[in-house]
Parts: sequence; structure tokens; C-alpha cells
Amino acid sequence: MIGREDLIALTRRLVDIPSTTGQEGAVGDFLFQLLAKNGWECQRQEVSEDRFNVLALNRTPSVLLTTHIDTVPPFIASGEDEQYVYGRGACDAKGIAAAMICAAEELAAEDRSDVGLLFVVGEETYSDGALAAARLTPKVRFVVDGEPTDNDLVIGHKGMVIARVEASGIAAHSGYPERGDSAIAKLIDFLADLLRHDFPTDPVLGRASVNVGKIEGGVAFNVIPDSAAADIMIRTVQPSDFYVDTVQALATGRCRVTVTKTSEPQRMLALDGFARKVVGYGTDIPALRPLGQPLLLGPGSIFDAHTPAEKISKRDLVDGLDMYKRVVRQLG
Amino acid sequence: MIGREDLIALTRRLVDIPSTTGQEGAVGDFLFQLLAKNGWECQRQEVSEDRFNVLALNRTPSVLLTTHIDTVPPFIASGEDEQYVYGRGACDAKGIAAAMICAAEELAAEDRSDVGLLFVVGEETYSDGALAAARLTPKVRFVVDGEPTDNDLVIGHKGMVIARVEASGIAAHSGYPERGDSAIAKLIDFLADLLRHDFPTDPVLGRASVNVGKIEGGVAFNVIPDSAAADIMIRTVQPSDFYVDTVQALATGRCRVTVTKTSEPQRMLALDGFARKVVGYGTDIPALRPLGQPLLLGPGSIFDAHTPAEKISKRDLVDGLDMYKRVVRQLG
Repeated sequence: MIGREDLIALTRRLVDIPSTTGQEGAVGDFLFQLLAKNGWECQRQEVSEDRFNVLALNRTPSVLLTTHIDTVPPFIASGEDEQYVYGRGACDAKGIAAAMICAAEELAAEDRSDVGLLFVVGEETYSDGALAAARLTPKVRFVVDGEPTDNDLVIGHKGMVIARVEASGIAAHSGYPERGDSAIAKLIDFLADLLRHDFPTDPVLGRASVNVGKIEGGVAFNVIPDSAAADIMIRTVQPSDFYVDTVQALATGRCRVTVTKTSEPQRMLALDGFARKVVGYGTDIPALRPLGQPLLLGPGSIFDAHTPAEKISKRDLVDGLDMYKRVVRQLG
Repeated sequence: MIGREDLIALTRRLVDIPSTTGQEGAVGDFLFQLLAKNGWECQRQEVSEDRFNVLALNRTPSVLLTTHIDTVPPFIASGEDEQYVYGRGACDAKGIAAAMICAAEELAAEDRSDVGLLFVVGEETYSDGALAAARLTPKVRFVVDGEPTDNDLVIGHKGMVIARVEASGIAAHSGYPERGDSAIAKLIDFLADLLRHDFPTDPVLGRASVNVGKIEGGVAFNVIPDSAAADIMIRTVQPSDFYVDTVQALATGRCRVTVTKTSEPQRMLALDGFARKVVGYGTDIPALRPLGQPLLLGPGSIFDAHTPAEKISKRDLVDGLDMYKRVVRQLG
């Protein structure tokens, strides 16, 4: 049996197995063997070569605790002091995986062997692990997804529309603007209108936000530029189509817009007695929804995720373990 | 004596001596020796190491014919067919130099030994040759500057303000825009206002134009960018200070503007009986003005200048020679 006394050591053990997205095989093997050794019925679901999700069940589950086992680069080995565990994945999301394992083990030892564990690959890029997991059987009533939410229950997160915007023009000497057609001028005109556009606000999810993350165009001050481009991301609170249509309409006659990814805004189950909040980042929840009704919570802060000093508080880890048990009990 | 029968051969000879800006020594030597051999009193005015202007006089001059002997890169050797002379500098401005030499020789052989010749380096970059030449004595009544104007008399050209615009912000994950401050958003906001700004029009020089020649900023769609920059050039019709002040006022609170070069709009002498026009490019005239009242005309088209197929029509060259003689006669 794995219990709360193993929580910190298990977190560090998981952090110390490098698992940047695309290279999750070793950490998957470790989890498979650990859980099998502790009496779980385990299966590997291959997602791509040497990358697989791990599903661990006792009897037919009604609740799944799930998180991802990939991390962003670069690998950072674990460390700890009195308060924190450090290292890549400490909070996003290997500490969470450890807390879920301990919670599920304790619940099974009590009376809840209907709680399953699902660890997926690929969350940090295209959710390919979660998309594959959605095809697993059995389905469950509730899926508790773990991401660092400071142990608050997240009742919604924004969706996203990612797009590439390109403008074309005709190059010319800057002394003869009538002979040229500035791609940068068209791009700026469009982006200014987009940034000033008043998108509607959602009462729960709040305000949509537009990020122009990257711009590039032109060669020199004295040449009218014939090409320019921008990479944009809209954090959405309405269905994606609404934003895609708005952006395409704004771009008409000025720029070409190629939508590269969309993901719908999500609303999750609220539970009495848990602090609620809305977050600004995306998760595997849209992909996992076919498995069961989603909830989202976990120890750790999103603001430590992806940083060179990634960490998780030991106190938060233990609270997270208890929180997962409490959520399962309250879901009934 | 060098006359119109030498015009095409002299043009090709000059084209075939490479003289990209910074490397004008060889073509300067050639002109010095050619003119000295033909009885001109020649002087070299050193501008920087191995680069010098050539001034050639008979008696005390009242008019100077002047053009530049540097070219843009790359060197392209001469060629010709029935209609055209080809090669780097054919129209900008070695054909013009040849036409001026033939015109001055013919004028001197007639009765006008008060016409001097001045060939300067560095026009294609920072006008360092013309700025040095402005310190030469004697001063003259009129300076006829040669650039490819299709043999029209240019009565004005726009000035310019060149600037670098930079915006700073705070990087953050795009899910939490309130934690970041987008440098790109500030840059776009400013540039959109600048491009939409209604600058006053001049009755002779026309409309000022703003070129945003280059933009860059940010790293990826999902990161709020902490830096962004643009290179801009305004073709001006009012004093530079007016534009600098306007741009600085528009940028306040959004961007830093560093002015890297200014050059004032120019008005030149008009003469009865010559087609007049305004051009969009800059010349050495602002720098040469201390030498005498400027005029601007020359054979060839600016739209052939700086191109891989640079050329000048043989017919235009001969017309240019005659035009220079006619201008000198009309100036009295």
C-alpha cells in the first residue's frame, strides 16, 4: 500500500524520471509497475511509439482521478527543503499524480475501490494522450482532472482560438508609396481593430482576451514591405466559431487568417463547501469529457508551472491528497 | 577635348570602374586624370581614407555641374544595345557624370569657361562627400545637381525623418493577461494612430507619407510579449521638427522613439521652358546648398536606379547633355 507517508518521496521519484512531452515512456513504465505491484489492474494504451497512457482500476470505477505525466522542457532534477519539493513537473503535474495515487490507495483501503487512476501523455502540446483516453472503456460518472489550482475547485476555464495572420503587399521604394502596397500597414490596421474590438463578457468566465504574441514583417525603413505576419491567440468565453467569424470579418480585405487550433471554453462541476474559481489556462478537460462529467482541482500554483524554479509546497500536496478524498466522498 | 561623340564610351568606362559607396578611389582617380589631361585645373578633396571628391575648374566658376560617383552594390559591368547602356550606375549617376563632362567641355569650347565640375562620393549613404564639398571655395551662383529625373527640372523633393520605435512590456502566460503587459499591443496602438494621422499637405510637395518598413516582436502566440520594435520613415513636406514632435507626442505612454536621421524637404529653382516635377527621393542637395542655389535634373529614370537591370537610354543621355547646356545658358 502507498500512503501519505510516501507522498513526498513519490513526488520526487516521478520528477526524477525525465518525461518531456514525446518522451513519456519511462515514467509510464514506472507508474505501471508501481500500481501493478500494489494490486491494481493496469493497462497501457499506446498513443504513439513508446508513449502510452496508464489506466489502473480495482473494480468497475465510478470516478477517475486523472492527470498528465508529460512536462514542458527542460528536465530539472528534484530537490527539497522543509517547505517545498522542486524540479520539473513538481506542480505540473507529478506532485498531483503522487497525491492522486496516495488518495486512491487510501480510499481503496477504506471502502472505495470504485476509484480509478488514469495518467495521460501529451497534455503540454496537443492533448493526444487525453484524446486517445476518451476512447477507453468503461465510462465513469465523474472525471477529476488534476492541474495546479491551489486546491480550489475550478468551475470553468476559457477556450482558445490560435491563428496565423498574414498580409501581402507590393514592395517599392519608400519615396514612391503609390507604387507599393504596404503589408505591414494592412496588418497593423487589422490588429489595431482586433485589439480594440469589444468582445462580449461571460458572467462566469469573464472577459475574452486577445494576445498578439508575435509579429514580423518588412526588411528596412526605406522599403515598402510586401509581407507581414502575426501569431495571435484569443482566450475565449463563447463558442470558437463566434471568434473565428469575427476575426475573419475584421480581416476581410486586409489579411488572411489561418486558424491553427480551437478549443471550446469549459464549465466544470461545482461542489458545495469547496472554494471556486475560474482559470485562464487550458487543460485536457475538453478531450476527456466523453469519459465522464469533469471536475478540476489540484495542489500547487499555475504560476510556478513552466518556470525554472518550478516547485510545490509539501503542505499543499498533503492538502491535495485530502481534497481528492473529500471530493470523491462528496460525489458519492 | 571630350565631346558628345565620346558620351556613350565614357559612360561605359565609368560604369566599368567599381565604385560602391566607400570604394570610390579608383573612379575618382580616373576622373581626375581625364579632366587634368583635358586642361582642367583639378583638385582632390579627401573625404575619408582613399575616398575623395574631384573639383575641376577653368576660370572662376559661376555655375557648378555636380553629381555623385558612388553606386549602390553590387557592381554590374557595362553592356549596351542600340537603345541603352546597362550596368551599375548607368543612370545613377555615371551616365549623368559623362553627360556633364561633355556639356562642360562643349560650353568651355564655346564661351562658357565659368562652368565647373564637382564629383562627390557617398551620396548613396550619408552624403559625406557632399557635406565635405559644401566647405569648398569658391562659392557659385548656381549648383546643378544631377540625378535621374527623366530630364525634367525638379522643383522640390520631400525630406525625411527616420526613426526606431520600441515598446516594452512584461512577459506573461497568455492565460493571465492581467499579469503581463503586451509590448506588441502598445506598438500596434501607436503605429495604427501614426498611420491614420492626417499630416498636412504642401501645395508643391504634396502629401507626407509614413512607411513602417519593418516590425518585429514577441516569441510565440501564447506568451505576452515584453518587447517589440519598428523601423519607420516619414517622407516629409514640412520642417522635420514638426514630424518629430508629432511622433513623440503620439508615442507618449506607449513607445520610445529614437530619431536616427532627419533631412529637410527641399525646394529648387524653376526655369521657364523646362518641364517641372516633384520627386520622392532624397539627394545631396540639402548638403550642397551652401555652395550655391540648387537645381536638380538629369537623364534616366529613378525607377531603373538600384535595380539589377539598371540602364539609361542613349537618347536620354544626349538630351541630358543638351539640357545641361541649355540650363547653363538660361541661368546666364
